[in-house]
Amino acid sequence: MSTTDEVLSANEEYVRNFKLGSLRIPPARHLAIVACMDARLTVEHFSGLKTGDAHIIRNAGGVVTDDVIRSLLISHYLLGTNEWLIVEHTDCGMLTFKDEDLLARLEKETGAMAHAPSHFHTFSDLETNLRRQIAKVRSHPWVPKEIPVRGLIYDVSTGSSNEVKT
Amino acid sequence: MSTTDEVLSANEEYVRNFKLGSLRIPPARHLAIVACMDARLTVEHFSGLKTGDAHIIRNAGGVVTDDVIRSLLISHYLLGTNEWLIVEHTDCGMLTFKDEDLLARLEKETGAMAHAPSHFHTFSDLETNLRRQIAKVRSHPWVPKEIPVRGLIYDVSTGSSNEVKT
Repeated sequence: MSTTDEVLSANEEYVRNFKLGSLRIPPARHLAIVACMDARLTVEHFSGLKTGDAHIIRNAGGVVTDDVIRSLLISHYLLGTNEWLIVEHTDCGMLTFKDEDLLARLEKETGAMAHAPSHFHTFSDLETNLRRQIAKVRSHPWVPKEIPVRGLIYDVSTGSSNEVKT
Repeated sequence: MSTTDEVLSANEEYVRNFKLGSLRIPPARHLAIVACMDARLTVEHFSGLKTGDAHIIRNAGGVVTDDVIRSLLISHYLLGTNEWLIVEHTDCGMLTFKDEDLLARLEKETGAMAHAPSHFHTFSDLETNLRRQIAKVRSHPWVPKEIPVRGLIYDVSTGSSNEVKT
């Protein structure tokens, strides 16, 4: 049985106890979170947020790419979030390889060169990287200056979230 | 008190009961999920997945952008996922506006023209859109052909996930 089939099977149980059908589209607590895709981060658990409270945007590294800016703009202008939070974490896979090495490996293993994505957004210092992501959001010309953008580092060994001051 | 401050406060309680410090980086069930950022989707809940089981990638719409491909490639080549699942959902905000309208609004409200992102990836038919996202992943030259890529539509009014056959 594939994991996808197990997910479908687990969902049948979830449906039997489902009570969230009246939630509305706009996030109840007007928050959008950008976080890493890492399997050890269940955002709702470590943040105390409930289903319906916040938009959750995730990618490899919790990096502010154009796609994240796209999601944040939609989150604010269409669905009313007015507070944004970026979460990166200790022991991130993005600290363990270099863009160029993965690019070379993909080209070698698949025989296909020069496709998008051309960058993987790896980094070597977590705190510096997080400050850069916050700066990328704040400096975007379509981001309203009054939206607070803060950053946390989640420690996967202790579960604690610590704010990085900017 | 801002929601971010409430998140930090809730995290203190989470740390006191934290028992997941021994989880490893690679997702235990070798799965990566691409899902919409919608606040009503707590992926781990409706899928029966536990913290540590799967990479979770999310953006506005659950759309396969270059950034999602980036995350999926890292997920497979660096961290061993070998099964991918795309989750879109009923009542999605992306069905409610048009790219061009948001672009015009951003330019008008901020006075700043022609910035990235230049597309918002809105769509008008959910099932067609989901099939397109699956096709985008499967046809990417760096995606190994043996990785199963399946798609579900999550119903926000009932909690049920239904597979879209391709």
